Amino acid sequence: MNLDALYAKLLVKTDAKMVLVVMDGLGDIATLDQCELTPLEAAKTPNLDKLVAAGCAQGRMIPVAPGITPGSGPGHLGLFGYDPLEFEVGRGVIEALGLGLTLQPGDVCARANFCTLNDKGLVTDRRAGRIKTEVCENLCAVLAAKIKKIGDTEVIIKAGKEHRFVVIFRGKGMEGPLTDSDPNREGLPIATVKVTDEKSAKQKKTAKLVADFYKAALPLLKGRQPANGFLLRGIAHQPAIPTFDERYQLRAAALAVYPMYKGLSQLVGMTKIEGPQTIKEQFERYVKEFNNYDYFFIHFKYTDKAGEDGDFAAKTKYIEEFDAALPILLNKMPDVLAITGDHSTPCAVKGHSWHPQPVLLHSKYSGSDKLKRFTETGANQGSLGVIEAKYLMRLMQANAKMFDKFGA
Amino acid sequence: MNLDALYAKLLVKTDAKMVLVVMDGLGDIATLDQCELTPLEAAKTPNLDKLVAAGCAQGRMIPVAPGITPGSGPGHLGLFGYDPLEFEVGRGVIEALGLGLTLQPGDVCARANFCTLNDKGLVTDRRAGRIKTEVCENLCAVLAAKIKKIGDTEVIIKAGKEHRFVVIFRGKGMEGPLTDSDPNREGLPIATVKVTDEKSAKQKKTAKLVADFYKAALPLLKGRQPANGFLLRGIAHQPAIPTFDERYQLRAAALAVYPMYKGLSQLVGMTKIEGPQTIKEQFERYVKEFNNYDYFFIHFKYTDKAGEDGDFAAKTKYIEEFDAALPILLNKMPDVLAITGDHSTPCAVKGHSWHPQPVLLHSKYSGSDKLKRFTETGANQGSLGVIEAKYLMRLMQANAKMFDKFGA
Repeated sequence: MNLDALYAKLLVKTDAKMVLVVMDGLGDIATLDQCELTPLEAAKTPNLDKLVAAGCAQGRMIPVAPGITPGSGPGHLGLFGYDPLEFEVGRGVIEALGLGLTLQPGDVCARANFCTLNDKGLVTDRRAGRIKTEVCENLCAVLAAKIKKIGDTEVIIKAGKEHRFVVIFRGKGMEGPLTDSDPNREGLPIATVKVTDEKSAKQKKTAKLVADFYKAALPLLKGRQPANGFLLRGIAHQPAIPTFDERYQLRAAALAVYPMYKGLSQLVGMTKIEGPQTIKEQFERYVKEFNNYDYFFIHFKYTDKAGEDGDFAAKTKYIEEFDAALPILLNKMPDVLAITGDHSTPCAVKGHSWHPQPVLLHSKYSGSDKLKRFTETGANQGSLGVIEAKYLMRLMQANAKMFDKFGA
Repeated sequence: MNLDALYAKLLVKTDAKMVLVVMDGLGDIATLDQCELTPLEAAKTPNLDKLVAAGCAQGRMIPVAPGITPGSGPGHLGLFGYDPLEFEVGRGVIEALGLGLTLQPGDVCARANFCTLNDKGLVTDRRAGRIKTEVCENLCAVLAAKIKKIGDTEVIIKAGKEHRFVVIFRGKGMEGPLTDSDPNREGLPIATVKVTDEKSAKQKKTAKLVADFYKAALPLLKGRQPANGFLLRGIAHQPAIPTFDERYQLRAAALAVYPMYKGLSQLVGMTKIEGPQTIKEQFERYVKEFNNYDYFFIHFKYTDKAGEDGDFAAKTKYIEEFDAALPILLNKMPDVLAITGDHSTPCAVKGHSWHPQPVLLHSKYSGSDKLKRFTETGANQGSLGVIEAKYLMRLMQANAKMFDKFGA
């Protein structure tokens, strides 16, 4: 029997409240040239320590598969209980979500960069000299004013930061992924966008649409140096993903500050709760909304940012800030609480990595691993072992007593 | 390559003796409101300690999949090396095995409850007021005397405890699973049993047989208040499972006291050894039978019972009783010895659970994890890691040198 089908079959509804707290990029590695501790180990975390002492199961989670470094999309889909290899979300979709756009199933999204073309049509700067955001916004307005539809397909254009924007094709009978029009280096012309599956009529239709979009858009940019062209990447449709309600019978809410994470939570049908800007405010809002939802996803971005900067001290400090706000959550303890990262962002790597992130699970039934703190080294000795991140949701459900027994 | 096919291809016959000791529901969790120890940690186990000191590998095992709580069927199939998701055994089959019935491949089994019907044919009590076992036995005798066959199909009826019994249809061309006739709540009529796969002619034949059985049986119960009707659940056939001999080339024997575990071992072709009633007697009999079999499954029930009762002291005491008998086994050490549970039955849960059970493996080649004792917390640090239970048998085979090298 298919495992997801088994989980669905055994599902029972309960009144349990569940909270997933994601400290983005939390996981780290100890290196000799830093202090032989990870930020989580170096940070003073009296409140996490108290939680651990109250009885937690710990472990480490492989975001996707051994050695695979995930982006935020696969990282979060895994945490939400969706196999990131089965539910693939294109970069165009992620980018659109990151800009706060609300997508519909079937929408085809592309990441776009303004670029500079010479008079032979060759790309001379793939980022158009990193034009200012205002310039990008003006150019997107020009395109959006003239190109509202191609045939029956609606075209949505939204500016991002600097030279970046997204293009969304909304209509029927389209499908990704398509190849990029970005030639990936200067001195080449804009590449023709091609299907990746020769048998897909929907991909062919989409490739034709993209070509028509280029035909309509390039003349509008003519002479607008340095941004007289654009490159498309990650052209893909929004896959049909079962919502939290459909998959788990849970009313889920997201308390995230950054658009990307709001978007990812919307992809799986969570309600965005707007307003809170700090982790303290997020926890306070969780307390207020406690009765309105069954599952809360609370996202804390700054651990990842510090890791990307390779800033050990900052990552440590952000963990301590998080810990200082934690009592607000702990004083309104849900039935099941998981705290983890969506991946590791080790300071030594200065970017996302494949290292399994530590996870902490607390419930009446989590048991205690008798560890003193929540750390990478401690989590190695936890009872959860090293598991794929997609199973965290299943363990949270089990701790919420949401599964019947399998077999007699 | 399919993994089971690889194991089969690499299989070599050896003279090794293997013993699997199952302390049912052994795994537990430490909770603050008990003593921050599990029963296995609290128990005095000088003989297990000695075994650990002699060199053991430890680890924890996920019975089926993360978060899934198994019944005894899937729990044991996993320990016997069969993927519980591939080899599904219906509840009717398990119930029949639990009553000590010997099944044949293809038998369709159903769990049955006597129930009370009102004069409109609506179920007013799904358990017929929990009639006494003697009443149930009498009613089953009435049905069995009149209904021996339906067409060419033999019908076997066996009483269980209180209102429970099982019905077995033995013949050709039948298949489950079918839907239940139990409407699952009072006030509704007995549901018509339906196929789960519209394309299965065998299921259709079986559904027709069940309908005919109802036609023959209900008139016999008329007026026999409160048990004037019955409900069927878990209607499934005994799947064809390769035997231990076919799969592993092992002559296997089962030393179990309870019918359920005798039945499960028979499903995979083990020989039942009857007689012993205590773990001491089971170990003594193992010593006597040592030369007659290659593999012994020894089942100890009481750890599970105490866990189901939430009785920490009793579970601890049963572990100590087990430990006291253990030297009989250790003095006739097999080449490979594994001691584990089929799942956890934590006292705090008062039932089976999803928590990985600890496992201990001893052989000339097991290596030593240099742990002092066999406990859940210790097993977290063991060299076996957290593995799916279905791999234990493969590790036992490997330790018995039953596998050739894969590739050059």
